[in-house]
Amino acid sequence: MPFYKAPLEDFRFMYHEFLDLEECRALPSMAEATPDVIDAVLEEAARISEEVLLPLNEVGDREGCRFEDGQVFTPTGFNDAYKVYTEGGWTGLTTDPEYGGQGLPSFVGLGLSEMINAANPSFAAYPGLTHGAYEVIEHHGTDAQKQKYLPPMVEGRWTGTMNLTESHCGTDLGMIRTRAEKREDGRYAISGTKIWISAGEHDMAENIVHLVLARTPDAPAGTRGISLFIVPKFQVEPDGSPGAPNGVRCGGIDHKMGMQASATCEMIYEDAVGEIIGEENRGLSYMFTMMNAARLVTGLQGLGMAAVAQQNAAAYALERLQGRALDGARYPDKPADPIIVHPDVRRMLLIGKASVEGARALGLYTGVQLELEQNHPDEEVRARAGHWVALMTPIIKAYFTDLGSEVANLGMQVHGGAGYIVDTGVEQFVRDVRITQIYEGTNGVQALDLVGRKLVANSGETLKSFFTHADKLITETTEPELAEFVTPLAEACGRLQQVTAWVYQQMASDPMEAGAASSDYLRMFALTAMAFVWTRQAAVAQRKLNAGEGRAKFYRDKLDTARFFMTRMLPETLGLDAKIRAGAAPIMAPEDDMG
Amino acid sequence: MPFYKAPLEDFRFMYHEFLDLEECRALPSMAEATPDVIDAVLEEAARISEEVLLPLNEVGDREGCRFEDGQVFTPTGFNDAYKVYTEGGWTGLTTDPEYGGQGLPSFVGLGLSEMINAANPSFAAYPGLTHGAYEVIEHHGTDAQKQKYLPPMVEGRWTGTMNLTESHCGTDLGMIRTRAEKREDGRYAISGTKIWISAGEHDMAENIVHLVLARTPDAPAGTRGISLFIVPKFQVEPDGSPGAPNGVRCGGIDHKMGMQASATCEMIYEDAVGEIIGEENRGLSYMFTMMNAARLVTGLQGLGMAAVAQQNAAAYALERLQGRALDGARYPDKPADPIIVHPDVRRMLLIGKASVEGARALGLYTGVQLELEQNHPDEEVRARAGHWVALMTPIIKAYFTDLGSEVANLGMQVHGGAGYIVDTGVEQFVRDVRITQIYEGTNGVQALDLVGRKLVANSGETLKSFFTHADKLITETTEPELAEFVTPLAEACGRLQQVTAWVYQQMASDPMEAGAASSDYLRMFALTAMAFVWTRQAAVAQRKLNAGEGRAKFYRDKLDTARFFMTRMLPETLGLDAKIRAGAAPIMAPEDDMG
Repeated sequence: MPFYKAPLEDFRFMYHEFLDLEECRALPSMAEATPDVIDAVLEEAARISEEVLLPLNEVGDREGCRFEDGQVFTPTGFNDAYKVYTEGGWTGLTTDPEYGGQGLPSFVGLGLSEMINAANPSFAAYPGLTHGAYEVIEHHGTDAQKQKYLPPMVEGRWTGTMNLTESHCGTDLGMIRTRAEKREDGRYAISGTKIWISAGEHDMAENIVHLVLARTPDAPAGTRGISLFIVPKFQVEPDGSPGAPNGVRCGGIDHKMGMQASATCEMIYEDAVGEIIGEENRGLSYMFTMMNAARLVTGLQGLGMAAVAQQNAAAYALERLQGRALDGARYPDKPADPIIVHPDVRRMLLIGKASVEGARALGLYTGVQLELEQNHPDEEVRARAGHWVALMTPIIKAYFTDLGSEVANLGMQVHGGAGYIVDTGVEQFVRDVRITQIYEGTNGVQALDLVGRKLVANSGETLKSFFTHADKLITETTEPELAEFVTPLAEACGRLQQVTAWVYQQMASDPMEAGAASSDYLRMFALTAMAFVWTRQAAVAQRKLNAGEGRAKFYRDKLDTARFFMTRMLPETLGLDAKIRAGAAPIMAPEDDMG
Repeated sequence: MPFYKAPLEDFRFMYHEFLDLEECRALPSMAEATPDVIDAVLEEAARISEEVLLPLNEVGDREGCRFEDGQVFTPTGFNDAYKVYTEGGWTGLTTDPEYGGQGLPSFVGLGLSEMINAANPSFAAYPGLTHGAYEVIEHHGTDAQKQKYLPPMVEGRWTGTMNLTESHCGTDLGMIRTRAEKREDGRYAISGTKIWISAGEHDMAENIVHLVLARTPDAPAGTRGISLFIVPKFQVEPDGSPGAPNGVRCGGIDHKMGMQASATCEMIYEDAVGEIIGEENRGLSYMFTMMNAARLVTGLQGLGMAAVAQQNAAAYALERLQGRALDGARYPDKPADPIIVHPDVRRMLLIGKASVEGARALGLYTGVQLELEQNHPDEEVRARAGHWVALMTPIIKAYFTDLGSEVANLGMQVHGGAGYIVDTGVEQFVRDVRITQIYEGTNGVQALDLVGRKLVANSGETLKSFFTHADKLITETTEPELAEFVTPLAEACGRLQQVTAWVYQQMASDPMEAGAASSDYLRMFALTAMAFVWTRQAAVAQRKLNAGEGRAKFYRDKLDTARFFMTRMLPETLGLDAKIRAGAAPIMAPEDDMG
């Protein structure tokens, strides 16, 4: 069975050495977030992930959720684990103290997110969705709604969902058919059927707060006619307790490739009573609050699963004896050398290591910007940080989930035949992580968001934010021994800028060029952003080494991994650059039958 | 449920227009293989694949094999399908008429292989392994062994297996522990436990012919002390019928990620009676006959599964309505456009199409060389063809199975959320094809075979064979309208030659350089080989168009797909080139703990 050891040493490096928290000092959320508190949170999150959640990951896969008479039962042990999780206060880690939360900055929550998703991604879905629903209500709800719904969600007694998809519409939400008719009491009667609703029904919470996209009778067609409603599973009594059942039920759960313990539900609404959030017809913009947060968290899911897959593959490579090193036996007294001696095994593991630690750095770096965007007193700082977050959201969602699949598959490959056997447990990583490339907007949709929206947003300010950070790093990193990182970063930035200008120009004459470039462009951008965080990690590590500060092996490892990334991963951008510049013609010319 | 429509039009193009069969004319196997016969075989193979095998693919996945009291039961319908398959003569399609086969050239069998693996890869494993065992006995067995074992295997009444792996050794067969002690009657008593034996036990055949690697008591250590034995499940009576049970039994079957209907068995040998093949201690070289054939067939498995995944994704993209084309609605009367209008969906489908049709061409081209190698009267032709086959075997095994996974995953991505739901049936493709990258020598092992052995084999003649074919094509393709294919092919060949020289030089001073380059080098070689077959397909298509021959749409499609490959897939070689030239240092420098 797979193990999981939370990467606390790397987290400490990230939070205390890699991240620049200077601008955060002024934030109220940082008052409590001393290094000691962060360390304590990470250690406790590690403990619950390793000891409570990981042991349930395999049983969750084997048993799956069970649907019976409209009820959904989570696998053995999930209910107890959820109690431990909520009693530990984890559902309120980064939420507002006004509603019972601990009010830590959101980037501290990213560490938790990575760990619980590494240990048990199906479990992590339940609090993950609740947090998304929390954010929508917190940002767009009335005070009464906040008082009514947020405290039990922060406590974890109630969970949340987002109800977007219908069988005929996923990406294209303009086609939603679920109806909402205003009742005399000002609330709405919601009717319709939603599919693929994660955590739509289960047995771990007292109540479930559904956020539902629906259409009022006189709403304009398309995306401008969608409203957002809060529809609790049980209507809420004046004293805040769950009361009469609402007109919503689960019609069944889906049998999926993976994530078996995360209930994916068909939800049937029949005159269910709902409260509107904000104004009619503006629902999609509110839901985007949740979607943007959910996209970052989905990226973290990919990262978490990559991390656990990587650990298990690395351990296996040290233990599995097979063959000899090409340049002679390393362990002549053993019947064979461990497979870690083989360059191609090392290559696979180093792709994993460089992907995981790079993504961790990029995710946390973005988490700091998110905190600045949401809470900094200075509007200009908020706007500037917001540009980075807007730019990186589709990149993190798509690239982190792609690397999740890639690293999980490499991990299986390192295991050889054993990787394909269910008992070994690593094929579950491949199956579980695969959905992350699809849900919360497919990675193709993310790529189009990057090229079609973010590239041109705010007169180019959104796009520029990356280059501003990168240029600053390049300028400030003057040590000659860091040139091996700075030089390829600068080259990659230059190449990215040039191809960006090229794409921008092409798009002006033909919008199809945006779509044709999108996926390769997103990957090229992501690799360049990874080069940025790897250069920054290398610079921190080199300076620590130069200063003779402890943990020398850790810093040397960082430099080695940074070197691997720069020389053996970043060059992929050369091919991507050429593919993008081939333009839309070779994609658009072929006829539509491609079977 | 997924459909499968055998690509007969493309097969006809391949067999009758793309392949150069000139040198094959003299072969006895070609006497029967008229275009009409080939077409009839393909049509019948299509029929059985579409109508008999495909409908069992999903039930095979759902039910899996069942192990009960040492017996293995295949899923509902498999037994009947196997009867239809053997009664149709498919198990003897390309085998020697002396043993009851139809004696068609092996490259005709490749079409069958692709189709049955597309329709039902678990089913295809049974005749596939039988054919591999057939080849070993045919090449290395005595006349008596051939007379005894081959006719029932050709008929399909008996099936075959290859028993290599033990729990402590897969890739490193030198560590095999299974013992073979010579009996007084000249036969051997085999004892030991083998794992992951495909088709090791099942209920579809009267007898199972196990080929088992084992070690005699006085055998030298390592790979030079391994012998090969025929161990039938039931000992064979003098009249050729199955008699007393032999000392071999199935200890259980593995629960795997996919390929559920292919029984993966633990086989326990306890003083089982076996006949030696050839001489003692030379078993591994005989088994390589089977392994090389099996590697090509494994490549075809990857291709077949890519083909069916591609078809289903392409059909879905025409039918699923979602969103509008970026440059305005294409079907304004429908609620949305089919997703085929989106460039990124087209990109995914075109990668699938270009991969599948390119691999089909490269596989069949190699099949012709295999036929020449095995059967041409002229020794020089045999040697020349053998170089191509030796060079392309690891490339086809690794690259075709990689593209199998890639195309299956792209197919799932095109399906969006529906792709992750078991009922849709396309996630099965992803799970089933994944093993092909691992078994028959992991793709990393293939890459090392290419760089470590094939690059230097026969004083470079093996390597040169590709460039000889490519140069000939480049020289002979002089039409200006084909320059858009010839130019990038020539560039890619030049780049490959240069990087080959570089790798060769590095290897001379450090053998680790071979391993460090191997996987990226194999992929670069594969893409260049694909550029070769795509240029050749484009040239054939363009000439047919110029000559005004029918099927104009088919030929235009070929040119479009060739263009896509050249402009949007081949440029990957730019990045691979740079990665390879980074050398072994960034891979070897990091310490061994990579978790």
